[in-house]
Amino acid sequence: MFKINDNYLKLPGSYLFSTIGKKVNAYAAQNPDKKIIRLGIGDVTQPLAPAIIKALHGAVDEMAQAETFKGYAPDLGYEFLRKAIADNDYKARGCEIAADEIFVSDGAKCDAGNIQEIFSGDNKIAVCDPVYPVYVDTNVMAGRTGVYDSAKEVWSDVIYMPCVAENHFAPELPKEAPDLIYLCFPNNPTGSTITKSQLQEWVDYANKVGAVIIYDAAYEAYISEEDVPHTIYECEGARSCAIELRSFSKNAGFTGVRLGFTVIPKDLKCGEVTLHSLWARRHGTKYNGAPYIVQRAGEAVYSEDGKAQLKQQVAYYMNNAKYILEGLKSAGYTVSGGVNAPYIWLKAPNGMTSWEFFDYLLEKANVVGTPGSGFGPSGETYFRLTAFGSYENTVEAVDRIKAL
Amino acid sequence: MFKINDNYLKLPGSYLFSTIGKKVNAYAAQNPDKKIIRLGIGDVTQPLAPAIIKALHGAVDEMAQAETFKGYAPDLGYEFLRKAIADNDYKARGCEIAADEIFVSDGAKCDAGNIQEIFSGDNKIAVCDPVYPVYVDTNVMAGRTGVYDSAKEVWSDVIYMPCVAENHFAPELPKEAPDLIYLCFPNNPTGSTITKSQLQEWVDYANKVGAVIIYDAAYEAYISEEDVPHTIYECEGARSCAIELRSFSKNAGFTGVRLGFTVIPKDLKCGEVTLHSLWARRHGTKYNGAPYIVQRAGEAVYSEDGKAQLKQQVAYYMNNAKYILEGLKSAGYTVSGGVNAPYIWLKAPNGMTSWEFFDYLLEKANVVGTPGSGFGPSGETYFRLTAFGSYENTVEAVDRIKAL
Repeated sequence: MFKINDNYLKLPGSYLFSTIGKKVNAYAAQNPDKKIIRLGIGDVTQPLAPAIIKALHGAVDEMAQAETFKGYAPDLGYEFLRKAIADNDYKARGCEIAADEIFVSDGAKCDAGNIQEIFSGDNKIAVCDPVYPVYVDTNVMAGRTGVYDSAKEVWSDVIYMPCVAENHFAPELPKEAPDLIYLCFPNNPTGSTITKSQLQEWVDYANKVGAVIIYDAAYEAYISEEDVPHTIYECEGARSCAIELRSFSKNAGFTGVRLGFTVIPKDLKCGEVTLHSLWARRHGTKYNGAPYIVQRAGEAVYSEDGKAQLKQQVAYYMNNAKYILEGLKSAGYTVSGGVNAPYIWLKAPNGMTSWEFFDYLLEKANVVGTPGSGFGPSGETYFRLTAFGSYENTVEAVDRIKAL
Repeated sequence: MFKINDNYLKLPGSYLFSTIGKKVNAYAAQNPDKKIIRLGIGDVTQPLAPAIIKALHGAVDEMAQAETFKGYAPDLGYEFLRKAIADNDYKARGCEIAADEIFVSDGAKCDAGNIQEIFSGDNKIAVCDPVYPVYVDTNVMAGRTGVYDSAKEVWSDVIYMPCVAENHFAPELPKEAPDLIYLCFPNNPTGSTITKSQLQEWVDYANKVGAVIIYDAAYEAYISEEDVPHTIYECEGARSCAIELRSFSKNAGFTGVRLGFTVIPKDLKCGEVTLHSLWARRHGTKYNGAPYIVQRAGEAVYSEDGKAQLKQQVAYYMNNAKYILEGLKSAGYTVSGGVNAPYIWLKAPNGMTSWEFFDYLLEKANVVGTPGSGFGPSGETYFRLTAFGSYENTVEAVDRIKAL
């Protein structure tokens, strides 16, 4: 008789954004006359930039002719895209990352979820708290997190690194040495960043204790301040301890297009075995590449037109972020983030819990945000708003919140 | 100090098709004047059908306007596609599969590789021998296959079901009851099929012993004979024991477009837990949906124009299959498959091993095929040719082989 992977049953409730979706749908069904504004899930709303649309049409036309038709993609992704990434995201920043150290994928969520597979089941993970839920949930599924304490909402075998107002939402080096350290900067959900010298401390620490940093840089396009690193490979020694996850979802609006990549430098080894070889084996065995037309769209992100158009798109969202940040501040909220990231992190007022504030905003202002507690225990009493709405909706949402 | 998943190190050599690719590239580099014809990897060569191109362009245009732009897709896939699948692939064949039992993905290879995750680590798998390598390799990575015997090329904890000329390439019920049974019909690599009553025996057996059948029907569009089931849900009782994997790669030429789906009926349970709920959780946590434009392309596969055009495309490849089958027969080869599948399975002549015949064909005829031993020990001395080339190349390849 077959048995299931009962680690799945240990997961408390459903995936955060599924829960939010269900709550909002239920409210909408009961209140069909209300205009709900969604600043919850980190989904973009602006259309794809013209340079990307042009590349997509061009690639579709190629698929229509036998001479230019493309079947299975190369395992790691097309050379034209990997080279554009290596040149623009790394070489241009003085980082030494070769095109064949880049693995193109259908998005950072998949990579963030799958990367733990190449590590031993008894490795211990450390995560920022609060944090994007995928890191912990996928380790739960793999049986790596021990026992769940439902009162404290923590796992016995996970090292939590609180990121709260007191430490400016920047994690401190853990007392117990972890094997895998998930870091995400600019941070989801807090919108906070750390400086290059702070990140260098993490790299030095990882090299010292023999840990791997899984560095999620999905929001790097939103960095506006100097001295905030765009990639972990700006730090010395990162090639021997860090994997970087990158996404096209937020810098180019690809949430519904699906493209991302993972960087694994060949210097990152366990004994004689490179993690690059393990991930290559996983790619070759369990994955069949991102669509050709989507990889061509990714290439267009790095074209001159694409860069200029996407700079405007990011500026559009950051203008929203500014409106939210200033609006909530003027209404007396305690707010952070929103300067180097499209997320605004606020303290729920009047001692409300995160979910109480969620319900309050949904019912009183018809605005959807994300409860901070969904990202980890230290997120309790916090709340996330995203800048990914349209400007008009963002203004209306903020004005409604101010009017409460 | 972090440790790796050392199950990966147990895998013998690299993924089959990567090995072939390297061998062919090396030969091509040394013999730049030779025209190599590739009938090895199961990759299509015909361009996308006009109805699909039209749908792709239309969806790209939608992504260019804020009003019609699409971000994250629904977890299970868009309703329009799941409904088209449910209606055309199931309801039209008298099978009761609801749209919400269908999970849209970026391809059957990913699903075939990932599906084992929802099962316990100590479940025992049974596979046809020879078979598509992904089933076994992904279970090796999960630590489910025991010790490798490199002389016999078998794993101690895998139940192999030989499919050889003596049993008409149809597996027999295993003596030891497995927990998970991988079946693929029309079969890759042998091109063989089983009848509906034969498949019914497997369904009855699985229900009796409490096993789950993972049924890979990627090649169903190539079925030409009556009484060969197009889906396992044509069999009574399959809803309580079978998961079906489907692909758009071979029926619609989507190898570089990437689309597939998995069906998990809600009747398929372990105690009170539905496998549907586990796979839904995996989808929600580790996956972010197939691209919107690709899902619209999938919808076009089921349009009237799409159906008519793809019927012609399948006929084109099956005409190739016929040419290979008859050509090799006339040259004295022992050949099977090629009637309900785009694969032709032949016996290597003169006592050659599979890889010997691979090298022989590559060097003497500049034709690339796939060594049968790459699919399992019972594939030794066999060889696979695919019908996915152009007609001109197929004819030239067969004529070269005949002339040897």
